Amino acid sequence: MLLFSRTNSSVCSQLIRKGLQRSLFSAMASTEETQVAAAPVVRKEKEKKEKVQQYTLKTPKGTKDWADKDMVLRTRIFDTLTAVFKRHGGVTIDTPVFELREILAGKYGEDSKLIYDLKDQGGELCSLRYDLTVPFARFLAMNPTIQSIKRYHIAKVYRRDQPAMTKGRMREFYQCDFDIAGTYETMVPDAEAVAIAVEGLTELGIEEFTVKLNHRKILDGIFAVCGVPEADVRKISSAVDKLDKVSWEDVKKEMVEEKNLPVEAADKIGEYVKLKGGRDLIATLESDGKLMANESAAQGVKDMVLLYDYLDAFEASSKVSFDLSLARGLDYYTGIIYECVTTGSAPPPAPTEEAASSKKSSKKSKPKDEDEDVSEYVGIGSIAAGGRYDELVGMFAQSKKKSVMPCVGISFGVERLFSILKAKEDMSKVRATATDVYIMAFGGGKEWTGFLPERMKVARSLWKAGISAEYLYKSKPKPRQQFEAADKIGAPLAVILGQDEYSQGKVKVKQLGLGDNADEGIDVALEDLAEYVKKQLTIV
Amino acid sequence: MLLFSRTNSSVCSQLIRKGLQRSLFSAMASTEETQVAAAPVVRKEKEKKEKVQQYTLKTPKGTKDWADKDMVLRTRIFDTLTAVFKRHGGVTIDTPVFELREILAGKYGEDSKLIYDLKDQGGELCSLRYDLTVPFARFLAMNPTIQSIKRYHIAKVYRRDQPAMTKGRMREFYQCDFDIAGTYETMVPDAEAVAIAVEGLTELGIEEFTVKLNHRKILDGIFAVCGVPEADVRKISSAVDKLDKVSWEDVKKEMVEEKNLPVEAADKIGEYVKLKGGRDLIATLESDGKLMANESAAQGVKDMVLLYDYLDAFEASSKVSFDLSLARGLDYYTGIIYECVTTGSAPPPAPTEEAASSKKSSKKSKPKDEDEDVSEYVGIGSIAAGGRYDELVGMFAQSKKKSVMPCVGISFGVERLFSILKAKEDMSKVRATATDVYIMAFGGGKEWTGFLPERMKVARSLWKAGISAEYLYKSKPKPRQQFEAADKIGAPLAVILGQDEYSQGKVKVKQLGLGDNADEGIDVALEDLAEYVKKQLTIV
Repeated sequence: MLLFSRTNSSVCSQLIRKGLQRSLFSAMASTEETQVAAAPVVRKEKEKKEKVQQYTLKTPKGTKDWADKDMVLRTRIFDTLTAVFKRHGGVTIDTPVFELREILAGKYGEDSKLIYDLKDQGGELCSLRYDLTVPFARFLAMNPTIQSIKRYHIAKVYRRDQPAMTKGRMREFYQCDFDIAGTYETMVPDAEAVAIAVEGLTELGIEEFTVKLNHRKILDGIFAVCGVPEADVRKISSAVDKLDKVSWEDVKKEMVEEKNLPVEAADKIGEYVKLKGGRDLIATLESDGKLMANESAAQGVKDMVLLYDYLDAFEASSKVSFDLSLARGLDYYTGIIYECVTTGSAPPPAPTEEAASSKKSSKKSKPKDEDEDVSEYVGIGSIAAGGRYDELVGMFAQSKKKSVMPCVGISFGVERLFSILKAKEDMSKVRATATDVYIMAFGGGKEWTGFLPERMKVARSLWKAGISAEYLYKSKPKPRQQFEAADKIGAPLAVILGQDEYSQGKVKVKQLGLGDNADEGIDVALEDLAEYVKKQLTIV
Repeated sequence: MLLFSRTNSSVCSQLIRKGLQRSLFSAMASTEETQVAAAPVVRKEKEKKEKVQQYTLKTPKGTKDWADKDMVLRTRIFDTLTAVFKRHGGVTIDTPVFELREILAGKYGEDSKLIYDLKDQGGELCSLRYDLTVPFARFLAMNPTIQSIKRYHIAKVYRRDQPAMTKGRMREFYQCDFDIAGTYETMVPDAEAVAIAVEGLTELGIEEFTVKLNHRKILDGIFAVCGVPEADVRKISSAVDKLDKVSWEDVKKEMVEEKNLPVEAADKIGEYVKLKGGRDLIATLESDGKLMANESAAQGVKDMVLLYDYLDAFEASSKVSFDLSLARGLDYYTGIIYECVTTGSAPPPAPTEEAASSKKSSKKSKPKDEDEDVSEYVGIGSIAAGGRYDELVGMFAQSKKKSVMPCVGISFGVERLFSILKAKEDMSKVRATATDVYIMAFGGGKEWTGFLPERMKVARSLWKAGISAEYLYKSKPKPRQQFEAADKIGAPLAVILGQDEYSQGKVKVKQLGLGDNADEGIDVALEDLAEYVKKQLTIV
């Protein structure tokens, strides 16, 4: 590869001389080259050199290629979710994979450090999208004529995260989002978003899952009555958010020692966040005079009553667990928040905490350990999550008119769903290709041509009729080679061009994969072939 | 927003100083205030400031949002091409949107300067993919067990190009690629690749198109016999490649003045590259003793004879124009090359050259002009293109075994196809949503509740049955509001919950969009609703 970066850099150094745009990249390349040439390696240059040597034939860290049967299974996930989204009146949009850097700035709290930036090659500063929600809000702010929309978006997002810190977690991964934007009556679109989460997971064949649900207003109320200063609410909230991964003791420690919360405040919070249930929990909170005296909490609880009524109508309540320990990391949520978890979402009790914490420390000390796969120590996390974010669009909106655009949405984690479904699937039964017909030629003797152009003609006649067909790219293939090729892709039918029969305008259609009780096959006139094959395919 | 990017820059320099990995953005918060406090704007900061001021609510230059009916039309293009690819036995793969920078280095000749780099945030140096071909070659080199594959890949690629230099040309755009990899008999997969180009465009409804086709070996032979030094072949070739955009005079000028080719050599080339035709042109070349004496050219011409035989079998020859002026920019082609063009592909004769050249100069002088839309001066270019590249995989292969992996492929330009098809489509007939049923509630009086949970129940019963249904997110909607909503999305059926009928377990199913001869509707029992609606939908 050295060779190429050399040639490359030479092209680039020309560019520099010519003083054209984007000399940055070229400068970089040319230094790289001199690196390799330069014998004495100075300290500062060392890193660079390592980068050059680091290069191996691989995909970037935290990314992977998808192929073969995995693609078939993943496509099935997309199709299933798309069907659900459309069923609820969803329309789809597609936004660029990178956004102006300022669009993403200040939307993700502590996680902003995980954003991928594009290099400054002249022109605008851009970053890869971190999720599909912020780009959606930007889209709405840019299109003030859209006063309401139900949109779904299935696309890749990017996070410079530690791969394998969570099972199936990557730096490049897919999200399948459905969001409802518009000013509507309380909890109506919220209930539908939750119903879509339940419907989506159910149709994917995930039997065992729970929708952990909470309300930011209730959480804020709890923090207020427990004596958390207004300014500290978000950071205390993000501590609570860790309760699905670490113990309450650790969370309390973080609150008190790292975030300077008084112990008694932490203890009060501890009393609340251990509560979970259903309508019963709503009743418990309603009977909590101190909490209900807090306007935010009271509003949140009122919302929950309404939400449960609607979830009953959607037959979704039984899947929901009202869980005061759910906080969600992202800054932009303003109302209900939810996370769908399944067996395997949570880390196995004992080993995790050490593993996780040892991991944390090792990260700082020896970054080499980054690549260590710790997925066995941890759960896959939530398989779908979302919530209400009423102010995100407003952050972008430049016209008063559009300053408020309430939104609620749900996002499915495809890779995690994939890992669950693949474990359940009998992959031996999954076919990578959709080929229905394998076209073969049998013959022999001196004047045997192998019927290559003839097989092409037959293929063309089938393709024209919308039938998938293949043949061996060989002028004189042996029968065995052709059967093996057909068998390899699992084609159900063979169309055989016999040396003599074909000259009489006939081919043999034979059912494949019957093993011992092999099909004798039947002669069909070329002009009837497509029609006959179509009929056969409805049977086999 | 000023706040953030300022912080960014300062933190980056810090990062370099500290040489830390990901402490980058955690440092951000702390440095923020100091940054903003810093009053005097030094020269270096000034550029940054300008960038910040540039920020407006938009997508990055050369990118766009896709939405509404455009998405429906674009999805149709993807589905049509996917069907064609599968019909030919294609399997699909998905590679990361960015690759290790060295993977892309030295693959794109002069165009390498258009590659988007990711910022060095610690770890590997990466760039956004420039096409789907090099990642495919990298994938094959990484998977030596794959000895042959027909793969398709529909995904976005990235080029820091001048948007609108060509109609429908963007910096982020889709490619639909089909490639055949493996060692096969000459021209067999090549012919199928061309056949897929013809089949794909035909099925998309592009009536008028031509597949301009040439052979790199013939071109190399021509350059040799015309006296082009071995070393200059690629740069002379890229000059010839411009013949679809500028006149022969300009190309000759470039060869002679910029690339120092002797005038007589240029003139000889001029004689060849003006030739185009079909089998007749093959005959012409075969009769050219001087050219046939060149081994490379002779081999190329032999290939063309074979190719035409196979294209006849595929009924594709009539669409192909053997055109010696076709050169293709990319370095990696080694055999046949082709470009599908249609009316509008070429620039309108007169205005272009001035426009193009004035553009060129203006680009260098005042980059502000970059954003000027010159699309009216130019054609949309080729709508599909490809060729054979036998050595690309070898560039990556580390095992002898895999050192040769011949490939041939075709790539469709989605955005260009989209602009052609949208112009022909009656977009008023395209529906953005797939909603079949709009659920309404009619009633009045004091005790009228609006049946919101009841509408939700009915919706749930339809969704469960796989029927797409919507309802107004309003507790007491007026009939008119509900009909308008149903009309807006063009739902064919209404399910109406009447105040009295519903209590008797009945709803009214009514056909919509009949205008004056409106449908009276028919009462259906709730338990039969889903089944009845399904029947109705097969009729309407």
